[in-house]
Amino acid sequence: MDFIYCIDVIGTFVFAISGVLAAIDKKLDVVGSIVIGFVTALGGGTLRDVLIGKTPVGWMGDTNYLLIVLAALPVCYYFKKYVMKARKSLFIFDTIGIGLFTIFGVEKALSIGLSTPICVMMGIVSAVFGGVIRDIILNEIPLIFRKEIYASACFVGAVVYVTLGMFDLSQQVSMLISIGLVILIRYFSVKKQWELPFKPK
Amino acid sequence: MDFIYCIDVIGTFVFAISGVLAAIDKKLDVVGSIVIGFVTALGGGTLRDVLIGKTPVGWMGDTNYLLIVLAALPVCYYFKKYVMKARKSLFIFDTIGIGLFTIFGVEKALSIGLSTPICVMMGIVSAVFGGVIRDIILNEIPLIFRKEIYASACFVGAVVYVTLGMFDLSQQVSMLISIGLVILIRYFSVKKQWELPFKPK
Amino acid sequence: MDFIYCIDVIGTFVFAISGVLAAIDKKLDVVGSIVIGFVTALGGGTLRDVLIGKTPVGWMGDTNYLLIVLAALPVCYYFKKYVMKARKSLFIFDTIGIGLFTIFGVEKALSIGLSTPICVMMGIVSAVFGGVIRDIILNEIPLIFRKEIYASACFVGAVVYVTLGMFDLSQQVSMLISIGLVILIRYFSVKKQWELPFKPK
Repeated sequence: MDFIYCIDVIGTFVFAISGVLAAIDKKLDVVGSIVIGFVTALGGGTLRDVLIGKTPVGWMGDTNYLLIVLAALPVCYYFKKYVMKARKSLFIFDTIGIGLFTIFGVEKALSIGLSTPICVMMGIVSAVFGGVIRDIILNEIPLIFRKEIYASACFVGAVVYVTLGMFDLSQQVSMLISIGLVILIRYFSVKKQWELPFKPK
Repeated sequence: MDFIYCIDVIGTFVFAISGVLAAIDKKLDVVGSIVIGFVTALGGGTLRDVLIGKTPVGWMGDTNYLLIVLAALPVCYYFKKYVMKARKSLFIFDTIGIGLFTIFGVEKALSIGLSTPICVMMGIVSAVFGGVIRDIILNEIPLIFRKEIYASACFVGAVVYVTLGMFDLSQQVSMLISIGLVILIRYFSVKKQWELPFKPK
Repeated sequence: MDFIYCIDVIGTFVFAISGVLAAIDKKLDVVGSIVIGFVTALGGGTLRDVLIGKTPVGWMGDTNYLLIVLAALPVCYYFKKYVMKARKSLFIFDTIGIGLFTIFGVEKALSIGLSTPICVMMGIVSAVFGGVIRDIILNEIPLIFRKEIYASACFVGAVVYVTLGMFDLSQQVSMLISIGLVILIRYFSVKKQWELPFKPK
């Protein structure tokens, strides 16, 4: 599955960079930066694999994932000025990352025969729990639980993906549509400052 | 095992409500409320299943658990005023919840043949770690580690349950006695402000 | 493997003491102290076992681990004055602990046939994540991510251990050399206030 693998590698690198940047912000050292980069990039997928019982977890079978995370370190350390300046535009990478990870997570849960609602949930977990675990370690209440449309974008993309799976489309087309949808929703929700309408009465 | 299933459903709903209320208190949005409700209700059992190797974890095989947690959301959102007013009496539901979850957790560990002390421990983990993970995500030192008799009540109930298992009692009777004991200890410890006697010298 | 078992028991006890002391510092009660002692001592190995899929996790098959952690409690509670006075020298026990746990963790990952880089990583996880999980529960950003040479010492020891494994040495000799190296690096890094040279540009 070269197409899926490619998706996963890009997403991992993008998330690792966002993790290392968060670690630098918090004045962590190089060890802390690697761990936070790793957790941000691979924490969501790791949690999914542990919950569904796919162990040893995914990245253990392919050392490339470890290398990809390590590669994010010099990029952030040596080009920090440029990366920081470009920070706002980095948001687009994070957005692409959650799109990729959501659909990849759904796909992995489907592959072991879990029910549709659980597969949708595992897609969301794959995409957002890397960031959640990062925030927990960095001692902050996860941002995505407070006000942004983030997990909700993943939810819509995941539901669309499993729905398209019932029709006679190629997997690649279904993936591209669903990933694009997550990216669009997330992108416009930030640009237009959309908020979820539900509030406690 | 209809009796056990029934116990589990009630406990899950009660815990989910207490989680959603904690999330609302912390001004989390609807996504955060669902996650905290889920973690509070199913986090302890999930940790137990992961540790003992029963994966995919329990709630993945039965979508009802997901629905039960989701049902707690509108209850808290639309009847928040009443629920908040009734907050102190909600404590009784939490108390019933830990009683149910302790014994159910012991039972699950016994069913895969773990040793008695580990089964007692897994009962306690099932009952209290949902709340512990909730507190970790909400960025607080878990209350139950600070001063209340909470895990201790679960400990007594779990020990009594495995002890009763050596006698010629029906499982239902053993369960009711042990669950009742957890509830009574917890209830009176709060009402009478009992504290554990052990202090560092 | 009596030699390995012996190593593991000593390390577990030393870590449990350091965990209970941290819990007392934070004014946790006896339940909190046991949990933090347990997590500090067995959390790293537990995370490793869950990630590599060795479940039920290690300590479930041998109740001695539970007893060792429980034994740390009266030691800290009844000899607290002496233990606190000797606090600085306790650092040496923590240092021995990470040396032992690193190599033991590498060994366990090797035994299920994971690739060398992943085994090195699992050694580090075994040694440092007990402390990391303790810090997360106690609501602090893990110290080892901020400025000390800690995980780096484990990294060097783990790499040396897998390298020695390619030569014709007995396992005991390889272990002693590697464990000694972790201890020496950690010891001198604290005494001489070594810091990692890598900083963001």
